[in-house]
Amino acid sequence: MKTLLAALAALFLAQAASADTLIDNVNGYTLDEDNKVVRFRAMLIGDDGRVKDLLSGRDKDPKGVDFRLDGEGRTLIPGIIDAHGHVMGLGVAALTLDLSDTNSLQEAQAKIAAYAAANPRPRWIVGRGWNQEKWGLGGFPTAADIDAVVSDRPVWLERVDGHAGWANTAAMTEAGITAETESPPGGIVEKVDGKPSGIFVDAASELVAKVVPPPLPIVRDRAFLAAQEALLSVGITAVADMGTSAEDWAVIRRAGDHGRLRMRILSYSSGLEPLLAVAGTEPTPWLYESKLRMVGVKLYSDGALGSRGAWLKQPYADAPAESGLGFLSDTMLRNLMSRAAMDGFQVAVHAIGDAANAQLLGAIEELADTYEGDRRWRVEHAQIVDPADLPRFAEHGIIASMQPVHEASDWRMAEARMGVDRLKGAYAWRSMLEKGVPLAFGSDFPVESPNPFPGLAVAITREDAQGQPPGGWMPEQTLILSEALAAFTTGAAYAGFAEDRLGSLEKGKLADFIFLDRDIFRSTPEQIRDTQVLETWIGGRKMWERD
Amino acid sequence: MKTLLAALAALFLAQAASADTLIDNVNGYTLDEDNKVVRFRAMLIGDDGRVKDLLSGRDKDPKGVDFRLDGEGRTLIPGIIDAHGHVMGLGVAALTLDLSDTNSLQEAQAKIAAYAAANPRPRWIVGRGWNQEKWGLGGFPTAADIDAVVSDRPVWLERVDGHAGWANTAAMTEAGITAETESPPGGIVEKVDGKPSGIFVDAASELVAKVVPPPLPIVRDRAFLAAQEALLSVGITAVADMGTSAEDWAVIRRAGDHGRLRMRILSYSSGLEPLLAVAGTEPTPWLYESKLRMVGVKLYSDGALGSRGAWLKQPYADAPAESGLGFLSDTMLRNLMSRAAMDGFQVAVHAIGDAANAQLLGAIEELADTYEGDRRWRVEHAQIVDPADLPRFAEHGIIASMQPVHEASDWRMAEARMGVDRLKGAYAWRSMLEKGVPLAFGSDFPVESPNPFPGLAVAITREDAQGQPPGGWMPEQTLILSEALAAFTTGAAYAGFAEDRLGSLEKGKLADFIFLDRDIFRSTPEQIRDTQVLETWIGGRKMWERD
Repeated sequence: MKTLLAALAALFLAQAASADTLIDNVNGYTLDEDNKVVRFRAMLIGDDGRVKDLLSGRDKDPKGVDFRLDGEGRTLIPGIIDAHGHVMGLGVAALTLDLSDTNSLQEAQAKIAAYAAANPRPRWIVGRGWNQEKWGLGGFPTAADIDAVVSDRPVWLERVDGHAGWANTAAMTEAGITAETESPPGGIVEKVDGKPSGIFVDAASELVAKVVPPPLPIVRDRAFLAAQEALLSVGITAVADMGTSAEDWAVIRRAGDHGRLRMRILSYSSGLEPLLAVAGTEPTPWLYESKLRMVGVKLYSDGALGSRGAWLKQPYADAPAESGLGFLSDTMLRNLMSRAAMDGFQVAVHAIGDAANAQLLGAIEELADTYEGDRRWRVEHAQIVDPADLPRFAEHGIIASMQPVHEASDWRMAEARMGVDRLKGAYAWRSMLEKGVPLAFGSDFPVESPNPFPGLAVAITREDAQGQPPGGWMPEQTLILSEALAAFTTGAAYAGFAEDRLGSLEKGKLADFIFLDRDIFRSTPEQIRDTQVLETWIGGRKMWERD
Repeated sequence: MKTLLAALAALFLAQAASADTLIDNVNGYTLDEDNKVVRFRAMLIGDDGRVKDLLSGRDKDPKGVDFRLDGEGRTLIPGIIDAHGHVMGLGVAALTLDLSDTNSLQEAQAKIAAYAAANPRPRWIVGRGWNQEKWGLGGFPTAADIDAVVSDRPVWLERVDGHAGWANTAAMTEAGITAETESPPGGIVEKVDGKPSGIFVDAASELVAKVVPPPLPIVRDRAFLAAQEALLSVGITAVADMGTSAEDWAVIRRAGDHGRLRMRILSYSSGLEPLLAVAGTEPTPWLYESKLRMVGVKLYSDGALGSRGAWLKQPYADAPAESGLGFLSDTMLRNLMSRAAMDGFQVAVHAIGDAANAQLLGAIEELADTYEGDRRWRVEHAQIVDPADLPRFAEHGIIASMQPVHEASDWRMAEARMGVDRLKGAYAWRSMLEKGVPLAFGSDFPVESPNPFPGLAVAITREDAQGQPPGGWMPEQTLILSEALAAFTTGAAYAGFAEDRLGSLEKGKLADFIFLDRDIFRSTPEQIRDTQVLETWIGGRKMWERD
């Protein structure tokens, strides 16, 4: 009998070591395979961090549950997957000068001056987030505008979209920029009276960026942790990192190796070099219990609309001599895509302008013949599409990876840049959906805030935070909430070849979910926009909680 | 009762999942904390891959053992740890043209011609292993010597010690080498009649190496697996990789991520850049169940003796105008060492010549005041030491990381380079040991074969494979076998901050061991040299077995 008791004791210990957790009394929502809404009142989570069962009203509670957690009636939805963000960019932005909330050049100047005074070291002042469109300058700022407040130290500030940089005179001097400096291919050195103005668009920004001292490892580590914290706090449990450099990858691995990686990252390498160096001949396996995977490559086919780098079929309405920058020849684009695809990597290509989207669609159409199977070619942004090209997305399983908040930020500028008539296929979520194109939504953080709830609100209203334009811009393109949520969850998971484990709360998938302070399915768009995340759980473990 | 039976069944399953293995009937040897020999007849290994117990004659067999393996009386010793090797170098050598077994220029030429014929692609022919000393040329070979057999494709061949490269004319043309090309700091462009001869010593080799196309990821992966196989087959269970590049690290991680990493690698980054990029602000944790860790940095203070790059206090006896190359100023060396040490990284510095060793000792003496605690400064090679400097090794816990086989390969050349009188502190293992300097032995593969048994034989005889010189070169420096084995096991583990888990078979350490075809403690030096490894076990799992 002593032996039997010992056996029972051992059994008890063995059970405790593989404990199930029941989270009950929740107002639960998830989506099924057809993206239909599923309600539940309790969720059983296994010790492996996966969903074991969902219980609705009529279901009996399971027996032998080891831990039980009262959801207190709160709303629980799947963790948000941001299908397009820049993790280290967000982290660095959190640690450096942030101009994204400035509404005038004067505000920006005051902030630069204050930052310089508060941060005597390091010598270089680096920042981001400015947007001359918001400042109403009628054009770009200049080096002299920074010199007026900081002239003794180099200052280098990236535009909000990352597609232009703004230097002061000290920075241009260190970079060796002179009146003779010419615009490189794929970039523009803006000039005033024949002299560099301080603005460097797209490829030209490398002329200055290359002399900015790289951040120390400890700064990179802090930046990553800051980004992770920011993302968890708005309910993002997984993100597609769109353009992971070799340095970024090392930082994320360091977090994983030291047990500091708390969210999931689907990495798309910044061009081919990190892809081949890191992943080598095939996508990496899922690492750190499905927290990290390098699945493919991020390429660029053009710039952005704000800096007039987006490549358009016709000239810019507000700059008739320009039609943007196509970064790559047709052949070069296909060669780069092909090099990745031949080893089974997924290919995600930035395309903003209608010419860039058309070029990319042509490349995919050609490559799809060679690279068969489930390729999930991703068009990142798919922002301004010629309506004639829209049907081409539905072929070859192309994924439209779009960012609803961009529409709210850009619609006025888009009208100025192109005129209303050329925007019939702009930010055209519903058209995509109706044509059967898989949608994946993200925020493009740090270009926009990573908070997905304004994104959901914009997706269903096409109104900005001020309710403009009333009734929505091209309101025929609005989605309903479940459709928008699907693009931020199941759609984003599918877009990253992760639908086997992420995106919804169903048996066998990882228990990534968030508690909200309201029921978004019974809220106005304004209320949805203001939703606060209360807790963020990943793999059945609470990773973040609001104070 | 049904419940109790179920409980018992569960208990049985739980036990089976954490099974112990007894390997008995072995002729076992290991070393204790004082490096005294310990004998055993059986070893119990836990499911965690660690030693649970060693049993000697009088000990009773443990009860409840799940698996039992008959050692058939074979000799079992701890896995060998090579304290200084180049893993990817070995792998690349295995996949490219290998000239290390050539005994004349004619043989080398024949091998180059045959390789070129057999390998029409890739266009560049890359190889290594040549040693003009063995060829009796009286000097370096020239580009014309390669041109005579391959002139239509570039050929680039590294010297056996990696400290010089030999190019044909096609390779020099692609690299833009002309009569005007000057020797860079820390390197020599050899010239004949004012024109580059085809030989590029130390830093000069980068002039050509930089235009050699880098290997594809798949080639790197294959190279790594080839190296791992070669090392396991000679009983090496762990290696200190002396100079891991960022690319090398990516390859090893890829092996780890895909479950192909079967041995243990202690990585010392190739200079500071990969160290800061990969490990960041502290050594990495042990990864992949103690199979990989980046613990520190490898730096170079001089070149090698064969190419007269070793930095000597007095000129070379056989080249009175030369005294070798000190790679770094005193200040630069200290700054690099300091940068690594300030973040707690271990510092390993290559020092061959007596001037280089003296410079390095001076640097350590200065830094040891700033960086307190258990630093384990490593002098790699410590090959030609001024006898006046030998006592300085015993201070500050400096580790002498030496390669016995180098002595057998080099003694004739060393006498030619320096004369007998200046070699009293050369390859001075016993002097180091007697002064209390921790010894770590390795092979410097692929400069030498990774097989540790010739190393053990040389360590105890100071004779080469031909028995030369009879009675040994400076025989007062010979060790006894247990001392030599300690330097290849416990010493090498200590030298890598791994003595808590590696180096010997004692309770709680990882069960890394090898079966041999003979009892090396009852063998002649010749028999020790010819020892064959039968099986290689790592973490209690058989990772390699002789066919």
